[in-house]
Amino acid sequence: MSKASGDDSPGHEGVGLLLGQVMNSHPGYLSGRLEAMGLSLARQTAVPDGREAIREILAEGWSRCGLLLVTGGLGPTSDDVTREVVAEFLGKPLEYHPEIQEKILAYFQRRNLTPPEMVKVQAMVPKGMEVLPNDHGTAPGLLWEEKGRMLVVLPGPPRELAPMYEACVEPRLRTSVGTAVKTRILRVHGQGESFVQEKCEGELRAIGLKEIGYCARPGEVDLRLKSVDEGLLKRAVTRVREILGEVVYAEGGETMEEVVVGLARDRGIRLATAESCTGGLVASRITDVPGASEVLLGGWVTYSNEAKVRDLGVLKESLKKYGAVSAAVAAEMAQGARNRTGADWAVSVTGIAGPSGGSPGKPVGLVYLGIAGAEGVETIEKKLVPERKTFKAMASQSALDLLRRKIQRGAHPFSKTEV
Amino acid sequence: MSKASGDDSPGHEGVGLLLGQVMNSHPGYLSGRLEAMGLSLARQTAVPDGREAIREILAEGWSRCGLLLVTGGLGPTSDDVTREVVAEFLGKPLEYHPEIQEKILAYFQRRNLTPPEMVKVQAMVPKGMEVLPNDHGTAPGLLWEEKGRMLVVLPGPPRELAPMYEACVEPRLRTSVGTAVKTRILRVHGQGESFVQEKCEGELRAIGLKEIGYCARPGEVDLRLKSVDEGLLKRAVTRVREILGEVVYAEGGETMEEVVVGLARDRGIRLATAESCTGGLVASRITDVPGASEVLLGGWVTYSNEAKVRDLGVLKESLKKYGAVSAAVAAEMAQGARNRTGADWAVSVTGIAGPSGGSPGKPVGLVYLGIAGAEGVETIEKKLVPERKTFKAMASQSALDLLRRKIQRGAHPFSKTEV
Repeated sequence: MSKASGDDSPGHEGVGLLLGQVMNSHPGYLSGRLEAMGLSLARQTAVPDGREAIREILAEGWSRCGLLLVTGGLGPTSDDVTREVVAEFLGKPLEYHPEIQEKILAYFQRRNLTPPEMVKVQAMVPKGMEVLPNDHGTAPGLLWEEKGRMLVVLPGPPRELAPMYEACVEPRLRTSVGTAVKTRILRVHGQGESFVQEKCEGELRAIGLKEIGYCARPGEVDLRLKSVDEGLLKRAVTRVREILGEVVYAEGGETMEEVVVGLARDRGIRLATAESCTGGLVASRITDVPGASEVLLGGWVTYSNEAKVRDLGVLKESLKKYGAVSAAVAAEMAQGARNRTGADWAVSVTGIAGPSGGSPGKPVGLVYLGIAGAEGVETIEKKLVPERKTFKAMASQSALDLLRRKIQRGAHPFSKTEV
Repeated sequence: MSKASGDDSPGHEGVGLLLGQVMNSHPGYLSGRLEAMGLSLARQTAVPDGREAIREILAEGWSRCGLLLVTGGLGPTSDDVTREVVAEFLGKPLEYHPEIQEKILAYFQRRNLTPPEMVKVQAMVPKGMEVLPNDHGTAPGLLWEEKGRMLVVLPGPPRELAPMYEACVEPRLRTSVGTAVKTRILRVHGQGESFVQEKCEGELRAIGLKEIGYCARPGEVDLRLKSVDEGLLKRAVTRVREILGEVVYAEGGETMEEVVVGLARDRGIRLATAESCTGGLVASRITDVPGASEVLLGGWVTYSNEAKVRDLGVLKESLKKYGAVSAAVAAEMAQGARNRTGADWAVSVTGIAGPSGGSPGKPVGLVYLGIAGAEGVETIEKKLVPERKTFKAMASQSALDLLRRKIQRGAHPFSKTEV
C-alpha cells in the first residue's frame, strides 16, 4: 500500500483511497498521441509525489510493460523527487551536467529572471541516462533503454512535455512500432452518443470494421474508428458521413474552432461575434487558433442591456417587448455586429447561463443564437444543460457550428436544412 | 497484463504501454475534493474501457483500499461495460429498475428528445447495490459497502459526477473520516515555484508545519499547507501573507476570476474589458463566475486595428507610431472601454500570441496590459511564454490580477507598489 506524500500527520493514515477511471472520457494529450499512432495505453496511473509511491509505480510499470512513460516531479522544489527515485530504481548515481545548468541559466536570463539556487538539482542526471533537451522550460527529460524496454521520464507541464514528446520520443516509438493501426476520430455536433451508435455501428460492422469507440462530451460525440486497413477506414468514414450528414464536423479529431478558422481562411470569409451569455468564449475559442487574425474582424461582449443597445444597436423596444433572451434580440445582435464590422458572417448568443435569472417561461439553459449574412439573419432556440460552464461550452459550440455550416454551404447561406 | 478495449486488431498486441504520472500538476476534481477533506489519494488509475482491464483494476483496488471510487463506463453504448463488470465482480445479477427507467425517460422528455432504445441498460442495477440518483444525466451511480470497505461507481461526465459526489458520497465519507487534516491552498500570481519555496518553506517548518506542497501552473503557483491543527494553519497562512504580500490572491483555492468578481460585487465596482491577443478570454473568465452580470458592463474583442479605432477610439497615429502591440495602444484601449461603459476599472490586453507575428524588437510572448480608472491609466509590459494557449492563459491571468489589485487597494488606485 503506497503512502501519500509527506504524510507526517495523523488523522488519515488508516484510510486507503483508490480512484479508478474508465477512459472513455476525453483522452489526455499522451493517450491521444499514442492512440493516433495505433498504440493503446494499457494503463495510466497517477500517484502522489512521495518517494514510496513513485518507487512502487516504477517497479510495477517496468515489470508489466515494454514502454513506461513517467511524467512530472522533475521541478526544483523539495517535493519533486522523480529524478532521484528513478536513479535509485535503476541503481545509477546522479551526475551533475554543467551544460544542462548553463541551458537553465540561459532560460532564466532570456526572461530577465534571477535563477533560484535550487534549480541546480535539475542539472543532475542518473548516470548513463539519455538527456532529452527541454526547449520550453528548465527540467530536461530522461530516457533509458534496456533489453528492448524503454523508460521515458518527461516534465509535467504540458507546454514542456508536448514538444519534448513530439521531438524526442514519438519518432523513436514510430521506428519501433512500424506500420500499426490507423485511427480516425469523427466528431459529431448536435446528436447524442446513443443516436450515433444506433445509426452507425451495425453498418460499420457490416463492412468489416471491428474497433469502434464512442466518447461523449457536452454537445458532442467522438466516433473513433480503428483498423490496420487504410482502405477499410476510408470506406468507414465515407459511410458515416453518408449516414450522419452535416452533423459530422471533423474526421481527424480537429476542434470546432480549428474547423471554422480553417474553412474561413480557405474561403476568405471574415467573421464577427456578439456575445451575451457566453461572455467572450466564442471569440476566445476562435482566437485559440493560429491565423485567427485573418478571420475575426471584431467581437463584443454585451452582457448588459445598455451594452446591447449602445454597442450593437439592439432596439430598446425589442428588449422591452421580448426580453434580452429572445430571438428578436439575438437577430439584432448578429446584425449589429455584422453591420459594424462588415463581416461576411456574424454570430450572436443570448441566453440564461444560471444559476439564477431563470423563470418558468425562460428557464436556465435557454439560449437564442443568431447568424447574420449578406441575405439576412436567422435565429435558433436551444435548451441546453442548466449548469453554467457546461452551458457556456455548449452554447459556444453551437455558435461555432452555425458559422461552420454557413461557411461550408458557401453560396447558399439560407438553405432549408435545419440548423 | 491488461488488454486494450475491443482489441481485435493485430499490429500492437505485443506493445505494453504504461503511463505513470506524478500528481503535482493541477489536481483533478475528485482528488481536490478528497484533499480538501484531508484525505490523500493513494493512487489514481485510468484503464481502457475493456472488460478485462476494468475487472483487473476492480480486483486490485478492492484488495488494496478501504475506499474505491470508480468513474466512467456507465453510458448507454456498447463500450460502456462498467455496470456489468461490477455486477460480475461482486457476484450479483443485474436487475431491471423501472423507476430508474422512468427517470431517464423524463430526462429525455424535458429536453424534447426521443430516448434511444439502448438507454434501458442504464436502468440495470447489480442486485443489492445502493442507487445514487443522477439529477444531471441518465446513468445513476452505484454504491456497495462490505466489512467497512466502500465501492462507489460514478458516471464519468463531470457535470453528472460532481453533484452526485457532493450530494451522496462526500457526506458519508465525512461521517466515516471524522475530524481530519485541514488544508489551505494559497494561490500566488507573479512569482515562481522556487521563489515561493525559498521564501516560505524554512519559516513554515520553523513554526511547526510539516506538510507543504507546491503546484506550478503557467504564471501561478499553489502553496498547499496541511495540518490537523487549525491554529497552526492560521498562523502559517498569516506568515505566508506577511512574507509574500500582495502576490497571494487566494487562500481557499479560489480561481482568480472568482476573487475578482467577489471583490467587485462586495464593493460595488463595475468592470469593462478591451482585448486583442486574449480574444475575449478575460471577459469569458469573468463571466464564468455566477453574478458576473452585476459586475461586467461590457467587453470588446478588437483583434484588428480597424476595430481598435472604430470601437474603442484608439488613435490611428498611435497605431502608426507605436504599433498595435504597445503601451500607448494598451492605454487607449483601456480608456476607450472605460469611457464607453462608465466602468470603475477597465482592463486592456494587446500582445503577440504567435506562432507568427513576432519580430526581434517585439517577440512572440510580448504583451502590454492597460488599466484605466478614475484618475488615469497605467500600463505594464510583460514577456510571457511564446506558446499560444499558454500565452493567452497567462495574459488573461495578468489582466485579472491587475483588476484584483486595483479593487483591493480601493481608494488609492495608483499607489507606487509595482504591478
